[in-house]
Amino acid sequence: MSLEAILTRIDENLPAAQERLLDLLRIPSISTDPAYIPQTEAAADWLVRELQEIGFKAEKRTTPGHPMVVARHEAPRPHILFYGHYDVQPVDPLSLWSRDPFDPAIEETPKGAVIRGRGASDDKGQLMTFLEACRAWREVTGDLPGNLTIFFEGEEESGSPSLIPFMKENADELSADLALICDTGLFGHDTPAIVTMLRGLSKVELTLKAANKDLHSGMFGGLAINPIRVLTHILGSLQDDLGRVTIPGFYDGVAELSPEVAAQWQGLGFDATSFLGEVGLSQPAGEADRSPLEQIWSRPTAEINGIWGGYTGAGFKTVLPAEAHAKISFRLVGQQDPEKVLANFRKWFEAQLPADVSVDWREPEASPASMMSLENPAFEAARQALSEEWGTPAAFVGCGGSIPIAGYFKTLLDTDAMLIGFARDDDQIHSPNEKYDVECFHKGIRSWARILDRIAG
Amino acid sequence: MSLEAILTRIDENLPAAQERLLDLLRIPSISTDPAYIPQTEAAADWLVRELQEIGFKAEKRTTPGHPMVVARHEAPRPHILFYGHYDVQPVDPLSLWSRDPFDPAIEETPKGAVIRGRGASDDKGQLMTFLEACRAWREVTGDLPGNLTIFFEGEEESGSPSLIPFMKENADELSADLALICDTGLFGHDTPAIVTMLRGLSKVELTLKAANKDLHSGMFGGLAINPIRVLTHILGSLQDDLGRVTIPGFYDGVAELSPEVAAQWQGLGFDATSFLGEVGLSQPAGEADRSPLEQIWSRPTAEINGIWGGYTGAGFKTVLPAEAHAKISFRLVGQQDPEKVLANFRKWFEAQLPADVSVDWREPEASPASMMSLENPAFEAARQALSEEWGTPAAFVGCGGSIPIAGYFKTLLDTDAMLIGFARDDDQIHSPNEKYDVECFHKGIRSWARILDRIAG
Repeated sequence: MSLEAILTRIDENLPAAQERLLDLLRIPSISTDPAYIPQTEAAADWLVRELQEIGFKAEKRTTPGHPMVVARHEAPRPHILFYGHYDVQPVDPLSLWSRDPFDPAIEETPKGAVIRGRGASDDKGQLMTFLEACRAWREVTGDLPGNLTIFFEGEEESGSPSLIPFMKENADELSADLALICDTGLFGHDTPAIVTMLRGLSKVELTLKAANKDLHSGMFGGLAINPIRVLTHILGSLQDDLGRVTIPGFYDGVAELSPEVAAQWQGLGFDATSFLGEVGLSQPAGEADRSPLEQIWSRPTAEINGIWGGYTGAGFKTVLPAEAHAKISFRLVGQQDPEKVLANFRKWFEAQLPADVSVDWREPEASPASMMSLENPAFEAARQALSEEWGTPAAFVGCGGSIPIAGYFKTLLDTDAMLIGFARDDDQIHSPNEKYDVECFHKGIRSWARILDRIAG
Repeated sequence: MSLEAILTRIDENLPAAQERLLDLLRIPSISTDPAYIPQTEAAADWLVRELQEIGFKAEKRTTPGHPMVVARHEAPRPHILFYGHYDVQPVDPLSLWSRDPFDPAIEETPKGAVIRGRGASDDKGQLMTFLEACRAWREVTGDLPGNLTIFFEGEEESGSPSLIPFMKENADELSADLALICDTGLFGHDTPAIVTMLRGLSKVELTLKAANKDLHSGMFGGLAINPIRVLTHILGSLQDDLGRVTIPGFYDGVAELSPEVAAQWQGLGFDATSFLGEVGLSQPAGEADRSPLEQIWSRPTAEINGIWGGYTGAGFKTVLPAEAHAKISFRLVGQQDPEKVLANFRKWFEAQLPADVSVDWREPEASPASMMSLENPAFEAARQALSEEWGTPAAFVGCGGSIPIAGYFKTLLDTDAMLIGFARDDDQIHSPNEKYDVECFHKGIRSWARILDRIAG
């Protein structure tokens, strides 16, 4: 077996690999829309056939929702699982697409060739990087690279309702020495990245109730409590003047960065001014004593995602409303307990309520942050492999958003997860004109070959 | 002339007076709805005929909107003007009415007989109390009670667009020694009231702008400014812990009550617990060191009448919105300058804006408070007349709302205004099933006869 031979085969295979990806992109597997149930199943069938052709023992597994695809290749080596999802986001508004989102094509652009179509980046293009690496490996060596399980989900874009039950019911089969997840991006344009921390999320909606009907502020103003006043007064103190969240106990479980990670992040040269400048901002607005990368990756937040109450139409009504509402969410890090964060918030909020005002809490949800254990040597091995392929040192990075699957592997299957992906910030995922750079697809395939060479061999 | 004979004639006339009011109530003079332009004009015509029958020289005057009705009776005595409005509120939702709002009737209820129909209380029933007093006076004495001008508007419920130009153009005709305005209510169930102070109103809508588009709180949360956070933080400090408005200069021009007025208000025995209890509240929520009546009548307020921003639909979106909005109003008293209040608010607000956040101000409006000069002996004379009729000492009261016409008489015509009305809190004005108590209609007519006997003779 020769890595160089496999990489060469990957280069030779690229035109055919693109055709295979376009084939998969033509299947409109929109998981949120019941009208697309047959097409979503067709995408699962397509992947089963593809996996079988490459040499896996693959099958479609039914769930109460869309099917899972599970494929196995037995070998006497560390068990590595690869996760991706074959469902895609809806395509509205269709009028903003430059082409039919399910008639994909390779387009030449001033920034290079792109694969344009719904799912090109999220996540069909990304999951195919791994399958194409396996295909080239098999073609060159006659065998697949190690003891592999492939696990594809068809409900990622619709809240993954079947995922936890399926993982629990098939825990023996899906537990592995390492899970690879390909649903993230590069850091900057050319720096490969391994996500080692993901923020968790707690959220809740609240309704403040005061009078039993809307009141006229002429008749009652000054005497009757206005719940919007109460809401702004309490939520207005969520952060102190330095941007720290004021809820008692909020920072319990939040750890400082290790010196190694702190030094590495420092070295990334993250340009907050440019990052914020793209959305019309200029100044970091989080904790004053934290770096911009800490603010989005390793520090927790409290945000008001929605607020409403009183008269919000055209013109003016001098009303004192009966109710006021807000949707609040918390991005969590480290060992913060997501349920406790909500409980502390409620307690803090309710302790500030004046007479005659009550609060209803609705639809609380809570999921913890994920911190990967860098002690697993696969992380360093993958970092070296990625650095070789991209010619730039790969980074261990955080992710401000939440990717629940990473936490599930740890909590349900005791399996460490390594998140590596090749998407770029301008891929327009979830938006019209989604694309995946041909360079990312090509180098992504080569990256997996290099990583598998180091960790699966 | 004998007051007793006039009061007796009023009692005898009551059945016919009710019929005349029902006749006027049958005309659907909804001024906000262009479909009712002919009916609104018909109500003006009806009043012109009625006034002519009573002995006035009356005419309908055209305006760019609905017509005014102006009637004169010359006499060598103090010139007294009476103001009312003949237009009514829309009737939606019709399904909540117990009868056709424009097929009015006298209904017996457990609380006594009522006149049910749109406009019964606001303001057709109230303005007819004055005309019926004049009618009985004429029938008994052969002459009308003094040097009178009647001034009826048909646009009060639609913002009075023609009122100021009309008052300016006809200033000579409408300037009087005293203006009587009959569009207010009793204090409590049986205590007659003369409004001597009316709060003014300044209002403005604001939009905070931050990023150039809505952001995802996973990717940007902690680093990017959230305008809802900024909005709640600033507006949440509008009042201090004692309920005082914190805007510098806000209380400039706010005077303390005179000892006489303070003592009289004290004697009213206002039951804040019961007043608030009817709308499901229990505790006064204004300035902690002020009585409940001060809070609604003689102290200024700052209220958030509407607030909105971010995701407000079902479920959750962890968005950091680009904008956040609020509608703010201030009830003003004494000599507060309404323009300056808005200017001070803007200055105070803008001084607290962090980097990257700007504010747009929209649709500012400002009208001052009105304070009647109690030095005019007509106030004390009317108070004695009302006290005699109702068997309860009449009160000089404040009014938390704004009745701009009172201010216009002062500022445009240098005419003091005296606001006396007989509506009750449960009259359902602006709502389905509006009514006017027959007792109020009857005693209202008698009240005007007694007042005119003292001030117009």
